Amino acid sequence: MNHKLIECLKAVRQTTPLVQAITNYVTVNDCANILLAAGASPAMCEASDEVFEFSQMVNALYLNVGTLTKEQEMSMYLAVRGASLKGNPIILDPVACGAIPRKKETIERLHKFGQFTVIKGNLGEIKALAGVEAKVRGVDSLDEGEDGLESCKKLAQEYGCVVAATGKTDIVTNGQRACLIENGTEILTRITGAGCMAGALVAGFCGANNDAFLSTAAALLTMSIAGELAQEAPGGDLPGTFRVHLIDQISLMDEEALKRGRVQWL
Amino acid sequence: MNHKLIECLKAVRQTTPLVQAITNYVTVNDCANILLAAGASPAMCEASDEVFEFSQMVNALYLNVGTLTKEQEMSMYLAVRGASLKGNPIILDPVACGAIPRKKETIERLHKFGQFTVIKGNLGEIKALAGVEAKVRGVDSLDEGEDGLESCKKLAQEYGCVVAATGKTDIVTNGQRACLIENGTEILTRITGAGCMAGALVAGFCGANNDAFLSTAAALLTMSIAGELAQEAPGGDLPGTFRVHLIDQISLMDEEALKRGRVQWL
Amino acid sequence: MNHKLIECLKAVRQTTPLVQAITNYVTVNDCANILLAAGASPAMCEASDEVFEFSQMVNALYLNVGTLTKEQEMSMYLAVRGASLKGNPIILDPVACGAIPRKKETIERLHKFGQFTVIKGNLGEIKALAGVEAKVRGVDSLDEGEDGLESCKKLAQEYGCVVAATGKTDIVTNGQRACLIENGTEILTRITGAGCMAGALVAGFCGANNDAFLSTAAALLTMSIAGELAQEAPGGDLPGTFRVHLIDQISLMDEEALKRGRVQWL
Repeated sequence: MNHKLIECLKAVRQTTPLVQAITNYVTVNDCANILLAAGASPAMCEASDEVFEFSQMVNALYLNVGTLTKEQEMSMYLAVRGASLKGNPIILDPVACGAIPRKKETIERLHKFGQFTVIKGNLGEIKALAGVEAKVRGVDSLDEGEDGLESCKKLAQEYGCVVAATGKTDIVTNGQRACLIENGTEILTRITGAGCMAGALVAGFCGANNDAFLSTAAALLTMSIAGELAQEAPGGDLPGTFRVHLIDQISLMDEEALKRGRVQWL
Repeated sequence: MNHKLIECLKAVRQTTPLVQAITNYVTVNDCANILLAAGASPAMCEASDEVFEFSQMVNALYLNVGTLTKEQEMSMYLAVRGASLKGNPIILDPVACGAIPRKKETIERLHKFGQFTVIKGNLGEIKALAGVEAKVRGVDSLDEGEDGLESCKKLAQEYGCVVAATGKTDIVTNGQRACLIENGTEILTRITGAGCMAGALVAGFCGANNDAFLSTAAALLTMSIAGELAQEAPGGDLPGTFRVHLIDQISLMDEEALKRGRVQWL
Repeated sequence: MNHKLIECLKAVRQTTPLVQAITNYVTVNDCANILLAAGASPAMCEASDEVFEFSQMVNALYLNVGTLTKEQEMSMYLAVRGASLKGNPIILDPVACGAIPRKKETIERLHKFGQFTVIKGNLGEIKALAGVEAKVRGVDSLDEGEDGLESCKKLAQEYGCVVAATGKTDIVTNGQRACLIENGTEILTRITGAGCMAGALVAGFCGANNDAFLSTAAALLTMSIAGELAQEAPGGDLPGTFRVHLIDQISLMDEEALKRGRVQWL
């Protein structure tokens, strides 16, 4: 199976998918840079007067509810509708939906405007959306991984989409098939935006490949291995330097590096 | 006294305070990353439909008026009220209040919704709020430090809170006690966001400690010493490289490094 | 002629022009940092309740329509009027105006509130504004340079301003005079914000010099040569590291480095 993940990365490099992002202001620059480093073309088009048309022209739509201004909320309804009309993949990042009720309400409303292709969150967020008890602090999951796969499958079946939960072990499932990714490093939690960047990559990979399950696994594997390599680079144990290496390593990611993947298919 | 500043830093590391920030879009990523590097948990929750409830759940609230959209202004009123109901510390960064009348008006109105715990600005901003003549250019203070301590004490007494003015010498006072911090480096003025990052750190420290006067001094000392160490690191004389080292040095900050502190207690 | 470009850079360093920016949230931090590195004083003042007065106090106004919220659109009308009343230079960056009709409509409306001093875009954007057929993908130009100078001259004459199109060769013209800049590097297209940073620099240079044609050429030359030097620095072939070096090299830019300029005057 792992060679299929490599093909997913190659497709991003070869097709330069156009990814629209309506995302939070904290990490929007990181999301744009990581998409460029992966070979995609980011367009952070979020104005409510623009998104309905634009979302019909792109290869994937990334929605991140981290800093959901009133205008962004409106834009998301319009963009989900636009993307749905063309069958463009929609990737949802349900940031802080466990801590802030409005996030969850907005997501449930968005779901009535169109079909999500992938929901990618940390485990606390996924559990909160799935209606399972979750431990969160602000935007962070304090969950240790219990019931992770079950929660993901439950949400995948309920929403009819691929669900991914990041954490010490990343989980990806479409409700039937699943995989566990054991790569990554703890330092990814000591910078802001690792989750957002992973979500943006998922959108990039879905924009270049038809199989959302494999695309999501490939994107998360790319992120996790880039994190390992960034930490191994000089000074990479410190968060400022690590962030710089992370973008570098995404740009260098290739078949050889992806062989570090410790992926378990279930 | 200095050992108490070290205790303040340790408390941040040990308690992971949750810091809500409603801050400008220019440096919001830097503020999140420096809080993480210091050991706090940042949550840039600023949507007007979310802040009233969220500000009641956090350990500190950081308000920065740098890019004050209409929605952010509304959010600040709601968040100040929410934080006040729970007695959560509120840290105000009055960016550009000397150059832009609306900033000052908004701050005076915010003050009627709840009690600030700390006001931290550059000296020009503090003087402008205190009603003392100030020299400013846009967001920068051109003030040389005359009447600094007097202006800070005046504002501290008027607002009943801790006041800190950053500059060549940082000043911290609660209206009675005061301290002067002689650390820091001029290169901090050649990157954007040094003031914002310092303000975010003040919020982080206040979220982990009860004494706002000592917390503010400890946060500014941490920032200034990290700046010195970042400049001494390879390439640290250049602003792009300096920024990377600055986050690294915040993550490394410890008792040994804080001994560089040149703090004068008045 | 090239010595005049060097004088333009020196004037930025000597006069610290105050540059107001109403710009996109993706790269606003990069724009502030590059202005500081060049010697200017950035003020990202964009709130609709502040901009009319503030735009009358600055040395230049930079408008970038990349993420044009409803409030930003309103702010731009107000700021263009304010800057015009004082004769302050207005620099427009028409991001994605070829892909998104609302961008172009807003720009045409802005033009009725005041006179642009410089329009700086990639060639696809310039062609789209000039009404010439353009090849674009989201925010990127896919144009190879055909009819570049003619399109720039057409737009310069129509809008009565300096027009600059960035690309493999940068083009600057005021409708009569023109120059071509052959410096730069492809890696500038692999980070987000190179175009925005170039636009911000144009504003900084126009804020310190009276000749908008020469200022624009000097700013783009500074950006392109800094890109070359950043790529030549250790690790500069990778986008994360390159970004750090880019800011460093802007801060180091001097007469000696500018001699690398390959400028053709027409």
